[in-house]
Amino acid sequence: MVSDGEQAAFEAGIKLGALYHQWVGTPISRATAESVEQAIEGAVGLQPYVQEIRVRLNRDLMTENPFGYSELSGKMFAVEIVTEYGGARCTAELHDTGEYPLMSIRQIDEAP
Amino acid sequence: MVSDGEQAAFEAGIKLGALYHQWVGTPISRATAESVEQAIEGAVGLQPYVQEIRVRLNRDLMTENPFGYSELSGKMFAVEIVTEYGGARCTAELHDTGEYPLMSIRQIDEAP
Amino acid sequence: MVSDGEQAAFEAGIKLGALYHQWVGTPISRATAESVEQAIEGAVGLQPYVQEIRVRLNRDLMTENPFGYSELSGKMFAVEIVTEYGGARCTAELHDTGEYPLMSIRQIDEAP
Amino acid sequence: MVSDGEQAAFEAGIKLGALYHQWVGTPISRATAESVEQAIEGAVGLQPYVQEIRVRLNRDLMTENPFGYSELSGKMFAVEIVTEYGGARCTAELHDTGEYPLMSIRQIDEAP
Repeated sequence: MVSDGEQAAFEAGIKLGALYHQWVGTPISRATAESVEQAIEGAVGLQPYVQEIRVRLNRDLMTENPFGYSELSGKMFAVEIVTEYGGARCTAELHDTGEYPLMSIRQIDEAP
Repeated sequence: MVSDGEQAAFEAGIKLGALYHQWVGTPISRATAESVEQAIEGAVGLQPYVQEIRVRLNRDLMTENPFGYSELSGKMFAVEIVTEYGGARCTAELHDTGEYPLMSIRQIDEAP
Repeated sequence: MVSDGEQAAFEAGIKLGALYHQWVGTPISRATAESVEQAIEGAVGLQPYVQEIRVRLNRDLMTENPFGYSELSGKMFAVEIVTEYGGARCTAELHDTGEYPLMSIRQIDEAP
Repeated sequence: MVSDGEQAAFEAGIKLGALYHQWVGTPISRATAESVEQAIEGAVGLQPYVQEIRVRLNRDLMTENPFGYSELSGKMFAVEIVTEYGGARCTAELHDTGEYPLMSIRQIDEAP
């Protein structure tokens, strides 16, 4: 038996792992960051069990290479996602701890 | 409060979502499939909380394009992963249902 | 010695190879396709020697999976790119031949 | 008209752009680096017009994160590729200049 809370956590993990590895490496700059945030939110929002998705990319880390742009790295991500499965709701996040882009569950509770 | 079972499920989801989106699109053939399987298993095995990872790629779907190779697609994956977190163990998988490459939890139980 | 035409062709190839492998696998639907097109155009436009980039994704191929969305595949791409290097200009494209998403040079000439 | 040298350069660019964006972000360590190098070489070697491909990943940059592994970044790549098209042969590379992972043509000449 698998509980609804476990299922909701599993689904949140899938989406965070997926978005990280889909998008890391994308050429990016402060001028294009918003467009990339919207594309990521749109893509994640299509996937099953996703209730909310919010992606912010840290402009401060977008230092320019010799050609004037940057590359999306794991440390730039600040993501909050909410998944629902049956009666459970999972809120999880991806954020930079300073030394690692960490994915973690913030809370799991009963869906409203 | 988040249970160990929920944490183990979250970690399994991260790894499945990550490997799918990291590797889809890779040029592949029957001759190179084993090398790709090993590279994926090696990469996933480095990540936290992973106890076991087994990746098989369906050679039957590796039909040749006009240039004699194929491209790794989601439907080719047969993956089984075991994660452990605290006192819980999660066994999850990615497999093709015939119409979708589905990620699902097979079982969650107390770690031995 | 490497000619400007060869350099312009090399740069066009880099961008087409990069965008294909960066974006294949992204969850997508007809409703989000435009946002993804814009994000790709914005990302490619940042890279050196790119003068023009136009990305269209074939909505007809965005058939819905059981969860109501699709996944960006190589056959969906219709891309035209113009690079300039020194005195040369290269126009290249990525389009589906029916059996393969082919990248090809359309023409190389002197930059205006 | 497009020359064989321009075509060979275009094909080399495609492969370098593709491998970079396909593989950046992969979990990696000194213990798994060789397996990843082989998988990349195998994948690139399948693609059209590739005569030689050599991939070395800089172990010195594989510093461990808090979980004991690293992530493949653009600066780790040292790649040499040879493509042939008609009567032309292009040797190109991807290497870290210290501030940028640069793709460049080393030489183009008549195929032997």
